[in-house]
Amino acid sequence: MFLIYRTFEEFRKHPETVELNPDEVQHLKARRIEPNTEIVVCDGRGRTAPALLLRESSGRKEQWSCRPDYTRQEFVDAPERIVYCALPKGSRVDLILEKGTELGMTRFVPVEFERSVRETYSQERAERLAMQAAGQSRRRYIPVFEQPIGLEELLSRIEGSAEACMFLLLDPSGRAAVDLLPRKRDAERTIRSHAIVVGPEGGITDLERIAMLEKGALPVALSDGILRIETAVLAGLSYLNLLQA
Amino acid sequence: MFLIYRTFEEFRKHPETVELNPDEVQHLKARRIEPNTEIVVCDGRGRTAPALLLRESSGRKEQWSCRPDYTRQEFVDAPERIVYCALPKGSRVDLILEKGTELGMTRFVPVEFERSVRETYSQERAERLAMQAAGQSRRRYIPVFEQPIGLEELLSRIEGSAEACMFLLLDPSGRAAVDLLPRKRDAERTIRSHAIVVGPEGGITDLERIAMLEKGALPVALSDGILRIETAVLAGLSYLNLLQA
Repeated sequence: MFLIYRTFEEFRKHPETVELNPDEVQHLKARRIEPNTEIVVCDGRGRTAPALLLRESSGRKEQWSCRPDYTRQEFVDAPERIVYCALPKGSRVDLILEKGTELGMTRFVPVEFERSVRETYSQERAERLAMQAAGQSRRRYIPVFEQPIGLEELLSRIEGSAEACMFLLLDPSGRAAVDLLPRKRDAERTIRSHAIVVGPEGGITDLERIAMLEKGALPVALSDGILRIETAVLAGLSYLNLLQA
Repeated sequence: MFLIYRTFEEFRKHPETVELNPDEVQHLKARRIEPNTEIVVCDGRGRTAPALLLRESSGRKEQWSCRPDYTRQEFVDAPERIVYCALPKGSRVDLILEKGTELGMTRFVPVEFERSVRETYSQERAERLAMQAAGQSRRRYIPVFEQPIGLEELLSRIEGSAEACMFLLLDPSGRAAVDLLPRKRDAERTIRSHAIVVGPEGGITDLERIAMLEKGALPVALSDGILRIETAVLAGLSYLNLLQA
């Protein structure tokens, strides 16, 4: 199955044909996918349509496109897996974007904690990396990439989410993660939305910690070692895969 | 706490002073650690000794070393977390080496499956990356890095381990990982040794799968998506952190 991603807005307009970009064509060819086979167009939010792959040649130039069949649309609901984290330096952000998408991250929100190193990231680049990763792991969701927020905003989201989303603060001194896992899988599980919060490398301050717990975040210890930001995020997302299984 | 690593053989000789290499000196300085403070020398297999940090200057040249106190040795036993996996391409191996060490990997064994892409890796480079990662996450163990083995050898290890080590074959069609976790933490847990097996990107063949299960490997599904080799390894090690908690 070969997946391509278009924005929610673009998909919603139901274009009759969708042109493939050079990256997509390269991947198609690497996987030896032939014209007139079916691929899948995704809106990145769970909605997909099968599409007939087409190739037009004029001389040495070729143009690949596909024609979606919107009457055969599907929608896959996925549990929310939200990442709030201090931005690590450089290429370590890319790791979160790529591997996080593979592990089902649905939203990425950098947080500026007191001890955060001030870093920025490109949402555009994030989306490109995420689309590649989603294609390879056949995910129907592309994470929403937000601009950095401050502690106040994070606190108000923890408070505002109430019972709808469980916020897990990854913290070596927290409760053993294994104790939080459901005893058996429960078809009527009510919480389908989880967020993990990962502090900066220097650690969160006591005040930050207390404020988050007061608003309802749950401190959870995932590992018997000290994890860097990006490793903690991936371990946290692996954990959500179990928690939401 | 600042940790440096020497080989098991070197440590065992109980050298009176241990010279620091340029990498270690750079890290010391970045963390503003002063002479005459205590650091820790590790043998990479759980044994450590506190050591007094020394600096000698002659002109503009300075030499950092430390003097271990072997009468105050400590030994930390860690659960075995063994990774058997197809080697991914290029820099994706580094990710396993670095992040795997952070997550407590104790042994790394590349496996040549039928659909493995033939890749090699440098054990020397692996050790260097692992020491850096171990220092940052304050792990007492440096993984043992083996040369690639074939399926026959893997099968005989699965069979030979009997009850002493549980082999988990990461496989999307396996049992839900959450169902294998202990109902409550059990002080008398007998299995302290786990191995994860991760196949190549093209998947393991049916024959490989059947052979491994026959020898006693347990198929386990970790994620609701398809994971690349390095992501599966990290998710697997995160899972072992829970399983052995």
